Amino acid sequence: MTVDDNAGESGTADEAPRRTLGVWFVGARGAIATTVAYGLEAVASGLRGPIGLVSELPEFAGLGLASLDSIVVGGWEVRPGTIARAAADLAANGVLPQDVVAKSAAVGVDARTAPGIARKDDPSASPASRERGELPLREQVRVLGEDLAAFAGSTGVDTVVVVNVASTEAVVATPECASDLAALERALDADEKLPQSVIYAYAALRAGCPHVNFTPSPGASWPALRELAREMSLPHCGDDGKTGETLVKTTLAPMFAHRALKVRAWQGYNMLGNRDGETLSDPANKGAKLRTKDAALRSILGDPKDLHTHVGIDFVPSLHDWKTAWDFVHFEGFLGARMSLQFTWSGSDSALAAPLVIDLVRFTELAKRRGESGELAHLASFFKSPLSGGSHDFHVQFAALVDYARRATTGS
Amino acid sequence: MTVDDNAGESGTADEAPRRTLGVWFVGARGAIATTVAYGLEAVASGLRGPIGLVSELPEFAGLGLASLDSIVVGGWEVRPGTIARAAADLAANGVLPQDVVAKSAAVGVDARTAPGIARKDDPSASPASRERGELPLREQVRVLGEDLAAFAGSTGVDTVVVVNVASTEAVVATPECASDLAALERALDADEKLPQSVIYAYAALRAGCPHVNFTPSPGASWPALRELAREMSLPHCGDDGKTGETLVKTTLAPMFAHRALKVRAWQGYNMLGNRDGETLSDPANKGAKLRTKDAALRSILGDPKDLHTHVGIDFVPSLHDWKTAWDFVHFEGFLGARMSLQFTWSGSDSALAAPLVIDLVRFTELAKRRGESGELAHLASFFKSPLSGGSHDFHVQFAALVDYARRATTGS
Amino acid sequence: MTVDDNAGESGTADEAPRRTLGVWFVGARGAIATTVAYGLEAVASGLRGPIGLVSELPEFAGLGLASLDSIVVGGWEVRPGTIARAAADLAANGVLPQDVVAKSAAVGVDARTAPGIARKDDPSASPASRERGELPLREQVRVLGEDLAAFAGSTGVDTVVVVNVASTEAVVATPECASDLAALERALDADEKLPQSVIYAYAALRAGCPHVNFTPSPGASWPALRELAREMSLPHCGDDGKTGETLVKTTLAPMFAHRALKVRAWQGYNMLGNRDGETLSDPANKGAKLRTKDAALRSILGDPKDLHTHVGIDFVPSLHDWKTAWDFVHFEGFLGARMSLQFTWSGSDSALAAPLVIDLVRFTELAKRRGESGELAHLASFFKSPLSGGSHDFHVQFAALVDYARRATTGS
Amino acid sequence: MTVDDNAGESGTADEAPRRTLGVWFVGARGAIATTVAYGLEAVASGLRGPIGLVSELPEFAGLGLASLDSIVVGGWEVRPGTIARAAADLAANGVLPQDVVAKSAAVGVDARTAPGIARKDDPSASPASRERGELPLREQVRVLGEDLAAFAGSTGVDTVVVVNVASTEAVVATPECASDLAALERALDADEKLPQSVIYAYAALRAGCPHVNFTPSPGASWPALRELAREMSLPHCGDDGKTGETLVKTTLAPMFAHRALKVRAWQGYNMLGNRDGETLSDPANKGAKLRTKDAALRSILGDPKDLHTHVGIDFVPSLHDWKTAWDFVHFEGFLGARMSLQFTWSGSDSALAAPLVIDLVRFTELAKRRGESGELAHLASFFKSPLSGGSHDFHVQFAALVDYARRATTGS
Repeated sequence: MTVDDNAGESGTADEAPRRTLGVWFVGARGAIATTVAYGLEAVASGLRGPIGLVSELPEFAGLGLASLDSIVVGGWEVRPGTIARAAADLAANGVLPQDVVAKSAAVGVDARTAPGIARKDDPSASPASRERGELPLREQVRVLGEDLAAFAGSTGVDTVVVVNVASTEAVVATPECASDLAALERALDADEKLPQSVIYAYAALRAGCPHVNFTPSPGASWPALRELAREMSLPHCGDDGKTGETLVKTTLAPMFAHRALKVRAWQGYNMLGNRDGETLSDPANKGAKLRTKDAALRSILGDPKDLHTHVGIDFVPSLHDWKTAWDFVHFEGFLGARMSLQFTWSGSDSALAAPLVIDLVRFTELAKRRGESGELAHLASFFKSPLSGGSHDFHVQFAALVDYARRATTGS
Repeated sequence: MTVDDNAGESGTADEAPRRTLGVWFVGARGAIATTVAYGLEAVASGLRGPIGLVSELPEFAGLGLASLDSIVVGGWEVRPGTIARAAADLAANGVLPQDVVAKSAAVGVDARTAPGIARKDDPSASPASRERGELPLREQVRVLGEDLAAFAGSTGVDTVVVVNVASTEAVVATPECASDLAALERALDADEKLPQSVIYAYAALRAGCPHVNFTPSPGASWPALRELAREMSLPHCGDDGKTGETLVKTTLAPMFAHRALKVRAWQGYNMLGNRDGETLSDPANKGAKLRTKDAALRSILGDPKDLHTHVGIDFVPSLHDWKTAWDFVHFEGFLGARMSLQFTWSGSDSALAAPLVIDLVRFTELAKRRGESGELAHLASFFKSPLSGGSHDFHVQFAALVDYARRATTGS
Repeated sequence: MTVDDNAGESGTADEAPRRTLGVWFVGARGAIATTVAYGLEAVASGLRGPIGLVSELPEFAGLGLASLDSIVVGGWEVRPGTIARAAADLAANGVLPQDVVAKSAAVGVDARTAPGIARKDDPSASPASRERGELPLREQVRVLGEDLAAFAGSTGVDTVVVVNVASTEAVVATPECASDLAALERALDADEKLPQSVIYAYAALRAGCPHVNFTPSPGASWPALRELAREMSLPHCGDDGKTGETLVKTTLAPMFAHRALKVRAWQGYNMLGNRDGETLSDPANKGAKLRTKDAALRSILGDPKDLHTHVGIDFVPSLHDWKTAWDFVHFEGFLGARMSLQFTWSGSDSALAAPLVIDLVRFTELAKRRGESGELAHLASFFKSPLSGGSHDFHVQFAALVDYARRATTGS
Repeated sequence: MTVDDNAGESGTADEAPRRTLGVWFVGARGAIATTVAYGLEAVASGLRGPIGLVSELPEFAGLGLASLDSIVVGGWEVRPGTIARAAADLAANGVLPQDVVAKSAAVGVDARTAPGIARKDDPSASPASRERGELPLREQVRVLGEDLAAFAGSTGVDTVVVVNVASTEAVVATPECASDLAALERALDADEKLPQSVIYAYAALRAGCPHVNFTPSPGASWPALRELAREMSLPHCGDDGKTGETLVKTTLAPMFAHRALKVRAWQGYNMLGNRDGETLSDPANKGAKLRTKDAALRSILGDPKDLHTHVGIDFVPSLHDWKTAWDFVHFEGFLGARMSLQFTWSGSDSALAAPLVIDLVRFTELAKRRGESGELAHLASFFKSPLSGGSHDFHVQFAALVDYARRATTGS
């Protein structure tokens, strides 16, 4: 689970020992993780092409990324069930194709799933997860670390990347200990109340695993965690996968800026019906998501005072995983002419997220192999709120990824 | 009308002699030219801010572009009337604001308007324009050149840029003489039938004027004309201003490519009600426009075999200048999930085009001053079908313009 | 101000004395009242045709409605200003056409405007309105009644119809006195806190004036006021003009019902930027509006348990009077197929409301002349929440109006 | 195959002999017929509810319509294949649910399918169909009649209704023989070239079977055929099922008329990817469809001179059966304010059509049982171009159906 000595060679020479990569999810039977598990098998077996996989674009062909059939999936899950049941539910709602579910087996995923950390009063959580939730924090970290070691040991994977795809956590005030690793260590010792996403991230980094935060929950975004990542020489990235409306927004907004058109209002209405939608229908949880969605837009447009923006998320159960968003852009052109652009985006949330998770795991594993650590700035295009900061302009972000690949390939 | 000796200093030093710039339109009382004439005055006088003017973005502040109040407008026009009447019509349809028309006078534009070249059987053309249309081609070129010289002489402008904003011409087969300047000269001698946009472009370049083709008509796009531009050491650019739906298309399409999403269909439906719309409702004229609109998309997406595209333009009189476009993008994501993005764009065609015309004139004058000649590749972002070829990706194009500005400013 | 003796003859015989009709607004310089004042003049003078006026449809030609040039406008207004200034603001935002404002004078409207009743701490209210607000309720009713009498006296109109077009009031709990006229009288005597719309409605009915409530505020909807209307033998109607999104909704929803299609979700997002929008951006005020909007839909669809609906209203200042709404309908068809219908409605709120106000005034005056009293059920098509109850299906409501006209004309 | 003596009792009394109804399709393995076959089984067995079935609405509960489990399906088909293969294709494209295909067997449909009449040069037709196409017309009519008799005989159904759901035929000039039955008989004798839909309709009526034309092809719409229906005392209905965009159009258009709003332009863009779309992508076939779509709108709006309309149909293969339509309505309100309504409709063509076909068959069988003949005016709401003429207003049409049911039930 440490960086391989012969980094750089892997994937290029036929005789190289086969490199394997473990993905360990926070939320192992959620819609995204399930789609990753079945999708990897479908693409690796040739049942489906690599549509949606950025890492399979020609621009990244020479990077020696871990091959798709070398990726092994496992993770923590707080709810009871099996991945087969999760897949059947996704299939019934048109997210996973019937033939993919029928032919892929996601064999062994259930065996590689450990209980997560649940609140003891969470009625939807498994007893084992609720038990774990009652352990002192230091004990939680210990058992989570044992899970990661066991996964690596039983599968023999060279690297384990921990990916948070769990439901968005309720927004809480950031505690003082967030800003400093020593303070966080004290808080762990004192068993203070900390967000679960932070516990998972801490446990991952302490276990030597790179961390990917695909959610808007804090994860490894606190300065204390960033310090830990640097201390452990581990790469990590986040926050909040840029899958749909924000992707379109950060693609379109630069157009207005580059044409000197004055955006007066940008109203975004999101509707979704999966568990994430239900979680977000609670205003407490919605906060985190909306904040990151709005900030990107304002940043691209130069945060003008008279810009009016709105981002709404509504839970519409019948949509299930099919997220639909309507954006209305009211802008002013030459001599004050009022014009508008509106778009409707309709896509499967999980089908959009899953390939990006696979991409992130591959790019992050490569970064670890290359000895990179800290926030991976070249992966900003994947996130609504990149840990590394920088431009939210999707084109600028993608150009940075291509540039990284060019430099990594040519060694320049 | 020749390049000033102290090029490069202008606009930067206070003591520098005031540089003036003449814009000579093909189509001087059309909606775009009228909006330019009134708009320039409104912005130069401070009645309106520089919204929509790319050349006023901070990225281009150090270039020493001709100041907005130094620009003088004139041109050729085949239809009878006055610019005040054209402005009143635009005001009645909400394109030009009432106060802009009331306070701006576009003084002298009518005096600086000369007859164009019209077919003798064109019932909407002025008698003078029809007369000109009956002259032999060499005579036409001569009188057009005299107009340009008279404009420069009477206004004292340092440079005249000729800009074609006339209605789209009917598509005709490209003659053999298009490919070679000597052949074109012979065709002119022989008084062969040539597109009017080509005659105008030829006359402009021969008179030492840079040429901007904002229309899909041939203009200076034939190899013979490009040869002439190089021979005359003149910069020029075109074709077909990228004002609305194609702008959005070339902004959005790269997003699908960069996310490895497979676009299966991209249907574009355009509706407009101005003279351009009427002209384009004739299938013969529509051809040119649709070709350039479709090519950009296919180029960005890698021209996949199973991509189905459609671009329609319909004349809807009640919309007048307010172009409305609906695009439907059907795309495939991970494991074949079918998703869609649709957008409705609603904007004033003239208000979108006019500032870009002003930008092009300023950038082209600068290019002439800097001694550049031939197709101006850095202006590709302004066109549906850039003469210089290259990427249609709006972001790539804009980055090239910023890069040009950086190099021009730092002298690197 | 009482019903004329020769009722029924007016408008049909040439020799009949000219009948005149006074409209007295609550909110006399608001966008709707201003548009009514200028619009009446523009249509009566022939500057504009009768577009948008339901009462000018052939179906109602034989009813002997008061002619448009016989209508005189006045009203109460809490804010300072002139109607000319209100009109200029509407013209600048494209609601009133420039030529209508230039040629119509709305002469005398300012002279026929009296102070309204404002809270003493309302910073935007005129001093005279704030003074009135401090009077005991019985005094308020008295001065309001004097205004109505003075209006009738000075203009000589035969009938005065009071129309509430003021901003939506904050939702408050309905007091016990609402249900019984005697109790309401005691509450007035005791100077209890009552909604202003109720005071206006009480004063109007007591003064013998029919009342039209174009807003979602209580107005004359309390049982006590309905009792008063019957006691005074006066017709009245309301609540809340059906101008835009709800009109489309109650037109479309029956289609799903009649085709046995199962609507699973109907999400409606409204954006507007006028004073009404600002008022509604306060959640307290929004409540009234949203309740009436949602109830109509549920009623038409049979209020199924698994129907998910949402109605949002957002304040988007740059839109000014141009209300834009997006509705998304997710429905299930044969064998469970998931389908959708979405629409975007974009219209000027005042231009939609003003003609309906004129229609309501004319139909209400006719009802008074015909001796009808109480809630006018045949005017349900004009309201989001008809006082008379009944079907919300726009087609059923319109058929009822046509049927009323047929019966009124044929005397059957 | 004759009207039962105890008509009126059937379906109401438990002891009544079970009435059975045969549906014989023209196009028995097309998407609609296949969806009907599987859907009937799914609904009759309780696997799915009666969503989309108008005839199952409470308004029609007392009519004694043939029960769903009494309907037997068969038909003519020109292409080779099996209904199971057709169903698998629909399932793969999300039209038929997997569990419906898995659990329903459409047992016996293939056995009850006879060859259709194909042109001998039609490469996609079965040899048997091409053979039939070479027979003299009188022979064709004879064998078609034998098919109907055999179907009735083998299944024992009381009534056979012939329903045309075949692909739209190319538009041809209507021959003189269309206007008179005697002339048509001579044309049949003379073996003149006649549209296939006419041959099928003639054969059906001659065999004593009511006819439903769900397509825009001529079918039984020629006066000669209508004469035959009356002569045979048979009810029939058509043309062209009102399933999607036209349904919405004829629901919405009356709203504009009733509100005195002036529609200036109604642009409709349809996209579909199934066989019907492919057929319609041929301009020759498109004609029939577009004509009926446009006429309905113009009729509702009073056919104003300055109304600009457009109806387009484009073939977009990736959409398969999922028809998507965008309509843009540009309208003028009070004082000339320009407003717009746009909608996007997205639905499965077959899932929309199939239940209406079932409804039509049930209502038509009832009409036959009740002794009605000729064009069934009460079924106008089901058609884009009702044979009976009358209003295109969907609400008026539906009210007529409800009224028919009330009269039929109460015997008034």
